[in-house]
Amino acid sequence: MNKIRIGIAGYGNLGRGVELAIRQNPDTELACVFTRRDPKSVKILTEGVSVCPISEIAAHKSDIDVLILCGGSATDLPVQGPQLAEMFNTIDSFDTHAKIPEYFAKVDASAKKGGNVSIISVGWDPGMFSVARLYGNCILPEGKDYTFWGRGVSQGHSDAIRRVEGVADGKQYTIPVEAAVEAVRSGANPELTTRQKHIRECFVVAKEGADKAKIESDIKNMPNYFADYDTTVHFITQEELDRDHSAIPHGGFVIRSGKTGVNGETGHIVEYNLKLGSNPEFTSSILVAYARAAYKLSKEGQSGARTVFDIAPAYLSPKSGDELRASML
Amino acid sequence: MNKIRIGIAGYGNLGRGVELAIRQNPDTELACVFTRRDPKSVKILTEGVSVCPISEIAAHKSDIDVLILCGGSATDLPVQGPQLAEMFNTIDSFDTHAKIPEYFAKVDASAKKGGNVSIISVGWDPGMFSVARLYGNCILPEGKDYTFWGRGVSQGHSDAIRRVEGVADGKQYTIPVEAAVEAVRSGANPELTTRQKHIRECFVVAKEGADKAKIESDIKNMPNYFADYDTTVHFITQEELDRDHSAIPHGGFVIRSGKTGVNGETGHIVEYNLKLGSNPEFTSSILVAYARAAYKLSKEGQSGARTVFDIAPAYLSPKSGDELRASML
Repeated sequence: MNKIRIGIAGYGNLGRGVELAIRQNPDTELACVFTRRDPKSVKILTEGVSVCPISEIAAHKSDIDVLILCGGSATDLPVQGPQLAEMFNTIDSFDTHAKIPEYFAKVDASAKKGGNVSIISVGWDPGMFSVARLYGNCILPEGKDYTFWGRGVSQGHSDAIRRVEGVADGKQYTIPVEAAVEAVRSGANPELTTRQKHIRECFVVAKEGADKAKIESDIKNMPNYFADYDTTVHFITQEELDRDHSAIPHGGFVIRSGKTGVNGETGHIVEYNLKLGSNPEFTSSILVAYARAAYKLSKEGQSGARTVFDIAPAYLSPKSGDELRASML
Repeated sequence: MNKIRIGIAGYGNLGRGVELAIRQNPDTELACVFTRRDPKSVKILTEGVSVCPISEIAAHKSDIDVLILCGGSATDLPVQGPQLAEMFNTIDSFDTHAKIPEYFAKVDASAKKGGNVSIISVGWDPGMFSVARLYGNCILPEGKDYTFWGRGVSQGHSDAIRRVEGVADGKQYTIPVEAAVEAVRSGANPELTTRQKHIRECFVVAKEGADKAKIESDIKNMPNYFADYDTTVHFITQEELDRDHSAIPHGGFVIRSGKTGVNGETGHIVEYNLKLGSNPEFTSSILVAYARAAYKLSKEGQSGARTVFDIAPAYLSPKSGDELRASML
């Protein structure tokens, strides 16, 4: 059997995670890593695989079955997604929720033009959490959705802390409020404000001589990022930050709280819960499973953009329908 | 827009649940209820809808878009499934795990012959739990699966109790062992015996003058059903049983405990958890969502048997792809 030849575009945390996930999926192999950096400066884990400049990616069209885009949603994917979907079957983790419809339309047009399949917004949110929300809503049409994130490191909020004047380094944890979670799991269907759902905990390394009181105030009052939350700020040393906060755990849960019966008298709670040792390694494991789906769909002659909503679960598996029905149903 | 016309074959707990679920899905309507009983003896909730003898079901071929089979897996479905799949798009909750491949093959042949779509083994286990197992395995290929059931009423075990000599009535609850659940959620990946995973709690009404010690011993030592478990037996009155144990709650959870990283050093826990006020009402809500999928697939010209593995999540929803991407991704 031919292995699914996967290319990685962008070798940061996510790209490295994809490389690791490929090693766990024997029907896939790493074909090439593409980077904007000097390829000589990029050391990858897999022996015998080339690192190539992303500017020369078009020359590798025939070497790659599925290209996994590991760039960011802010500036990389809006350009790369539509561009590369014309040349390759692609998977990406575009996660700017509000811009998904526009991004989908652009990638769809390119993928159709090139005769490729592109599955966008793959990961856990958007991604597996979206799938959990969709199943929950379809099964229990009368109900409420709740999504909680954490305990985990928010990259965006950690970046925001590091931009504050006087801050040398920092990490931010998003933490669900226990009382809110309990109320939701009880079936009480509470209305919850932003502040009632999550708290934000910051570990900050101040520059020498910086005004810590001002840093704390600047963080807590930062609009959009922190002002709507109860935020705690801990000042620690760089050594402590490196020792205790270098992992990238995350997680969270999607809850559908619904009612059935003659008059909605019967309550049901459906919860999809993730506790992740590493956010990028879990996300990239999802990307590789969906790369398999894109490969199969492309072999069937399909083309265009897809999301996790459009992919039947069996497409993610290396097993046949017979094997799945016998072993996993 | 034409509503999806749904027929119900068999009006027990599950059939009544389907009738209730149809009321929560405005794009569906109840077309007819079919019964083996005297139709005059069957009182349904929906006004203006006929109850017809199942022997005359063929005459209703053109009135029904999807027929939901609400019979049991032991004797009803093995006959009805293949028979009715030739006439109708069908949904069923066939749950004899070991016989699914054989059943699938028979229904598949009939459905193809009739040009219909039949989705088999729909519900929560098999069904949503199977989907959770499949997603978990595809995302985390290196890991272990755990399925716990309960706390909930097991119909099969309750029936078994009621067949014991001297028993007038009874209910059995399946309960996960807390220590086992904690060990799994911690990522310890324990090997668990049947006895270590679940306990069984029985509430029994003894007939007058019956030997309670013998009843308790007969239950606890019953092979397959109870002998491999730690079982407790409580004797109560019929009044207490009716008052405290007439609901049919159930639930459980599927956990995938997996590893990623260079040497499997990163742990991840994925859990899908159900707490159900009514087992049949939740199951039937799933059946109706999959009826929508069967309807759409049939309109596309597809035919043959399918399982939950083959159905893309979007097919379960009344919303368009655009709406889903904008609101739920």
